[in-house]
Amino acid sequence: LPDELLTEVLARIKPSIEEERQMKSVAREVIDKIDAAACSAGLDVYAAHVGSTARDTWLKGKKDIDIFLMFPPETTREKLEEDGLRLARAISPRFEERYAEHPYITALYKGLDVDLVPCYHVEDAAHIQSAVDRSPFHNQYVLKRIDGLCDEVRLFKQFTRGAGVYGSELRTQGFSGYLCELLVLKYGSFMGVVEHGAGFRHGKVIDIEGHMDPSIEHPDPLIVIDPVDPKRNVAAALSGQKFCEFVDACRRFLKAPSIDSFFPPPAQPMKRGALEGLLASRGTKLIAITFKTPEIVEDTLYPQLRKAEDSVVKMLERHEFKAYRSDAWSNGSSAIVLEMLVWELPAIERHLGPPLDEREHCEKFMEKYPEAYVMGCRYVVDIPRRYDTAVELIRARLTSCGLGKHVAASAAEKFDLLIDEAALDLGPEFAAFLGKFLHAPER
Amino acid sequence: LPDELLTEVLARIKPSIEEERQMKSVAREVIDKIDAAACSAGLDVYAAHVGSTARDTWLKGKKDIDIFLMFPPETTREKLEEDGLRLARAISPRFEERYAEHPYITALYKGLDVDLVPCYHVEDAAHIQSAVDRSPFHNQYVLKRIDGLCDEVRLFKQFTRGAGVYGSELRTQGFSGYLCELLVLKYGSFMGVVEHGAGFRHGKVIDIEGHMDPSIEHPDPLIVIDPVDPKRNVAAALSGQKFCEFVDACRRFLKAPSIDSFFPPPAQPMKRGALEGLLASRGTKLIAITFKTPEIVEDTLYPQLRKAEDSVVKMLERHEFKAYRSDAWSNGSSAIVLEMLVWELPAIERHLGPPLDEREHCEKFMEKYPEAYVMGCRYVVDIPRRYDTAVELIRARLTSCGLGKHVAASAAEKFDLLIDEAALDLGPEFAAFLGKFLHAPER
Repeated sequence: LPDELLTEVLARIKPSIEEERQMKSVAREVIDKIDAAACSAGLDVYAAHVGSTARDTWLKGKKDIDIFLMFPPETTREKLEEDGLRLARAISPRFEERYAEHPYITALYKGLDVDLVPCYHVEDAAHIQSAVDRSPFHNQYVLKRIDGLCDEVRLFKQFTRGAGVYGSELRTQGFSGYLCELLVLKYGSFMGVVEHGAGFRHGKVIDIEGHMDPSIEHPDPLIVIDPVDPKRNVAAALSGQKFCEFVDACRRFLKAPSIDSFFPPPAQPMKRGALEGLLASRGTKLIAITFKTPEIVEDTLYPQLRKAEDSVVKMLERHEFKAYRSDAWSNGSSAIVLEMLVWELPAIERHLGPPLDEREHCEKFMEKYPEAYVMGCRYVVDIPRRYDTAVELIRARLTSCGLGKHVAASAAEKFDLLIDEAALDLGPEFAAFLGKFLHAPER
Repeated sequence: LPDELLTEVLARIKPSIEEERQMKSVAREVIDKIDAAACSAGLDVYAAHVGSTARDTWLKGKKDIDIFLMFPPETTREKLEEDGLRLARAISPRFEERYAEHPYITALYKGLDVDLVPCYHVEDAAHIQSAVDRSPFHNQYVLKRIDGLCDEVRLFKQFTRGAGVYGSELRTQGFSGYLCELLVLKYGSFMGVVEHGAGFRHGKVIDIEGHMDPSIEHPDPLIVIDPVDPKRNVAAALSGQKFCEFVDACRRFLKAPSIDSFFPPPAQPMKRGALEGLLASRGTKLIAITFKTPEIVEDTLYPQLRKAEDSVVKMLERHEFKAYRSDAWSNGSSAIVLEMLVWELPAIERHLGPPLDEREHCEKFMEKYPEAYVMGCRYVVDIPRRYDTAVELIRARLTSCGLGKHVAASAAEKFDLLIDEAALDLGPEFAAFLGKFLHAPER
């Protein structure tokens, strides 16, 4: 049964011969053009095809291709950027410069996005000048060993996609393509990875080359020592939550293999009646804090959204409210979403004064609050509660919690609080997200 | 002004010459009778008058007197008890045996309760066989030094009474009479103690004889090394709360000396309307858990009541309810009283499953809860909340929290939950206690 299932999955994810041929020919053409341009410009630079399209592990429909421009290690940074740009022009007049931790150029060529990434061609991976210099080594390592396992990698990549754990960028904090390849190399097949993955425990170490540096502690849930760099954990970007979701997905697949594991049915937007009914039966309150999404890259945005979520939850707790769960969502708008367990509180609160030991502070406190009394080792006083509801608190204090620079600026400009079913006003994508967020049974 | 005030206080607390004469003559007569009875029974035992009545530091109206029966240290425990009983009969046919940590006999003699306490007459305080053997040494120590300071001690004792911190028994966890005497010896006067007391910090050490054993750590808020035993903290029974209340009382007295500090107006029972109004304006809910007071001595009862209070508060917290404050009260009935901040919760709760690492446990959990999901490093599931209100929870689970043996037995037999103003049904004393408990402004 799994075999039939995997064949069915593969039919949907394996690029057609047509697509494969086109991808390869584009790569070949780009490389030839770059090399020719470098030669005629008298540059000691050559192009190399790297990434999943070079290793035959990409999934059908991929529209981008990675070509690295290999510069001598003694090239200055300025020259590398300048010459990189000049070579990019050889491919297409339509290109743009982008910056991740390193500048690169994206050129449109025959309908594909060609990422041209200048890097230093160093002797070995121990001498890299920046993270991108490592990619060619990854490429060589995998290329030499992946023969016969490409489809297994494709199955595994699609499986992590279905489980929502594919992608090592900060939005997902999941599995990178290289990590998927290494796991398949380690366990020999898609089923091998899933069978072992179901038993992964927090702190699992995989050291294919047996060369890990024991003096380095990796505080990560999964530690996959980079075969080309013994100091590096390839799975360092994987969060604890995503690690556990992966293990869970493996277990569920082993128990009941299903096409849905690879292609989960798309989340349906929650309907108003369903949301009202769900909230009424749960007895909780939904609060969505919404604001315009700052115009920054996702790797900057998502950490800020998570920070904002965390700050809001902590602020609510400091004021004795309680969130049952929270999450962050982003699209054209962004939202911090809270399902509240306690969102209204009595009219009084306890105001903590100084410890009795601090006599001078105590005197000032007692002057201000003669009705203060001793509790434990400090003075305290009952005062009218400043914010009786979570909504009032957020409305008044959101912009003074730590939200992250760009999120803070956006919220300072304007934010809205959408309560309960009003949250559906954010649109169908958010409505679909809400179904998952609330673990709605019918979705 | 304080001088006049103190004179006024003293007039109310110093025993009359009449009372003093009677106290002394009763002591004399009892000692003579005991000594004669011992002599005629051929016992090597003599009587000694100890305690505040022996040191002229007692407060007007005291109705009991301590006479120690000094036995040779080699006497067996059985013989000490048997002969103690026999000597007691010489005083009065009306006596009863009591047990604290040590047996003693209370005999009624000329309208006074005479506590006859058999003890071992040891060489020095380092050789005592039980705590009572120490009392004669305390008596000698204080008697030798207290001349001229008796009224200062009386003022200070009355002050601690007014502050609610007098008495080292487990009900109060406050200041013993001996501790009051030592503080007056240390600081020379009532005002001296209060002035220093206002500045006491947690961990304050007073070592009059300068002989403390530095190898012993006293984890107490106030450490007063016993002049007759360098290993002992005379203030060991004082709780952190009572220590702070004392410091607070000193500060308030220095700021505004008043007769009320010594004789606070008795708490008035809260009236129904006032309680209703107070709870309505605070928005909190009052829950009194009441049961018959177990027939045990207070030193056993109060720790059990506090344990019960603590267990109930912890149980409420485990179920996500929240008490704003709690206390225990006892009289004919006993009560654990809670002012609740959160006493109703939504219809769902999160049920925590095993960590993902525990694969076998996880399998069982997932069979039971297929809708479980991953949160952090464990499986969790939303289930219908078992107890929607604090009252339901307490009603169902009170008897399974750790209540202390006798309180548990009483609650198992029957307990009631009195909500809000219904708590007044417990009677006027409880109604007066409630005013203090709630820090009611008009009381």
